[in-house]
Amino acid sequence: MSLVVVGSVAFDAIETPFGKTDKILGGAGTFISLASSYFAEPKIISVVGGDFPEQYIKLLEKHNVNTEGLQIKKQEKTFFWKGIYHNDMNSRDTIVTELNVLENFNPIIPDSYQGADFLMLGNLSPVVQRQVIKRFKKRPKIIAMDTMNFWMNNSPDELLKTIELTDVLIINDEEARQLSKEYSLVKAAKKILALGPKYLVIKKGEHGALLFDKKEVFFAPALPLEDIFDPTGAGDTFAGGFIGYLAKNSDISFENMKRAVIYGSAMASFCVEKFGTEKLIGLSQKEITQRVMEFIDLVQFNYKLRDLF
Amino acid sequence: MSLVVVGSVAFDAIETPFGKTDKILGGAGTFISLASSYFAEPKIISVVGGDFPEQYIKLLEKHNVNTEGLQIKKQEKTFFWKGIYHNDMNSRDTIVTELNVLENFNPIIPDSYQGADFLMLGNLSPVVQRQVIKRFKKRPKIIAMDTMNFWMNNSPDELLKTIELTDVLIINDEEARQLSKEYSLVKAAKKILALGPKYLVIKKGEHGALLFDKKEVFFAPALPLEDIFDPTGAGDTFAGGFIGYLAKNSDISFENMKRAVIYGSAMASFCVEKFGTEKLIGLSQKEITQRVMEFIDLVQFNYKLRDLF
Repeated sequence: MSLVVVGSVAFDAIETPFGKTDKILGGAGTFISLASSYFAEPKIISVVGGDFPEQYIKLLEKHNVNTEGLQIKKQEKTFFWKGIYHNDMNSRDTIVTELNVLENFNPIIPDSYQGADFLMLGNLSPVVQRQVIKRFKKRPKIIAMDTMNFWMNNSPDELLKTIELTDVLIINDEEARQLSKEYSLVKAAKKILALGPKYLVIKKGEHGALLFDKKEVFFAPALPLEDIFDPTGAGDTFAGGFIGYLAKNSDISFENMKRAVIYGSAMASFCVEKFGTEKLIGLSQKEITQRVMEFIDLVQFNYKLRDLF
Repeated sequence: MSLVVVGSVAFDAIETPFGKTDKILGGAGTFISLASSYFAEPKIISVVGGDFPEQYIKLLEKHNVNTEGLQIKKQEKTFFWKGIYHNDMNSRDTIVTELNVLENFNPIIPDSYQGADFLMLGNLSPVVQRQVIKRFKKRPKIIAMDTMNFWMNNSPDELLKTIELTDVLIINDEEARQLSKEYSLVKAAKKILALGPKYLVIKKGEHGALLFDKKEVFFAPALPLEDIFDPTGAGDTFAGGFIGYLAKNSDISFENMKRAVIYGSAMASFCVEKFGTEKLIGLSQKEITQRVMEFIDLVQFNYKLRDLF
């Protein structure tokens, strides 16, 4: 089924204990699109400046990402983020955030994108996210969104209005705690699901991800890795794998959502192995399958019925 | 198969955001024994003072814990620990540690304990842990041990000598990092398994537990709970459920170790719901089975073979 992805297409400059990069391809929209491209043919809505290299657009298109909705503002500059990760990779400092073209982003939905079944809203202003939803003539069957604490601090009312319109909210544990004012993630999930979404995914980074609906809960670990080289974009990559898998099967049962969480986790486990999008480029289906099998081995066990009855 | 448990039997005084207790029943040996008593008939080796209430000994015996190896030093006082948990329950301050009878603990193994198949060494001085091993005329089939950073800091050589003698080391993530000098738990596990043990369990508290051998890795989450009332003893309770389940089935294949990790996690999830040992007293098999089923629901998913091939 068709999938539209909205999110930043950007330059990132990253420093980790393992090395540093100049401006490289980044942005939530980029990570989501690349990750989902292994399952669906995502159509991206975003904006870049005249400084954005043609080769990056070609790279997206080579991954079957439809870029008709990627606006190019020739006179402006592309969104730029620079960050430094600390030694344990669990915290980072933002050194530079230049919004540039994103400052007045007016999302345009090409006619060929209308009628999409799945819509993934990457982290952006909740006002822009809502504009996108409203500009679809027919509401997509499933709307998933990511957001971050910045919008909780700065536009909480707009954020709540947008969350109310979505089916799946995908946020991290700190954001879930801030949004719900509950430390317990179980309590947080109850409160957040009362805001509108039918499903909530709480990403816990190296500690895995939880999927909630009003009745059930599912947990997928992160793959234990020897090294986490660069966590940038891992959460977006998770979201891309998750929504891509759902779009591929067009099945939004809780059982299929569980599998989608595993596929999201598998894609995220690739992302952190190299800088930026590097590892997400040109993955083979075989590599993805093998990674998913590692998750199966990691969590599956055979319970003994005679232990239970 | 027969199981011997070594560890402190103590008084704890606990303060959490939910309340506080006076001196109540605590100690690694107590938590391990109670948790394992649902699967095996543990025989405890420990020491208490003349101030230790007869009712606590009766309570252990009511749970089929053999107390023949519990020495009572009438002229001395029982080990006492007092701690305060912070708001997020992830860190605590130790306010009081009175070693008392533990200071010169000389573990005596009753004749009826000889020939044990499973030995669980709760956290104690590695010298005492090694004395226990040496005092068995025939080496138990499986020796599991817990330890803590205190011994890494204060008697690292003694600790390594004891670790070398064991089959299963059960420690938390911080301890694994300190012992191995590796931040990555995958790298830490490789180094620690090179020290002697065939299996390593790394407990990550609310983030679950990892089981490693030289070839495989298995992960079990902690059950997401609305409230963690009191984490005291959760790690020991995990160890008790784990070793108890192994002793019950007398099966030390990796597949059965996985199930043991799930049973350990289930027992720990009970422990944190009330103060101290309160919740571990008088559990029914039905409650334990239902809790294990919750773990199965939490992590099991049906993968689609057509996704993989």
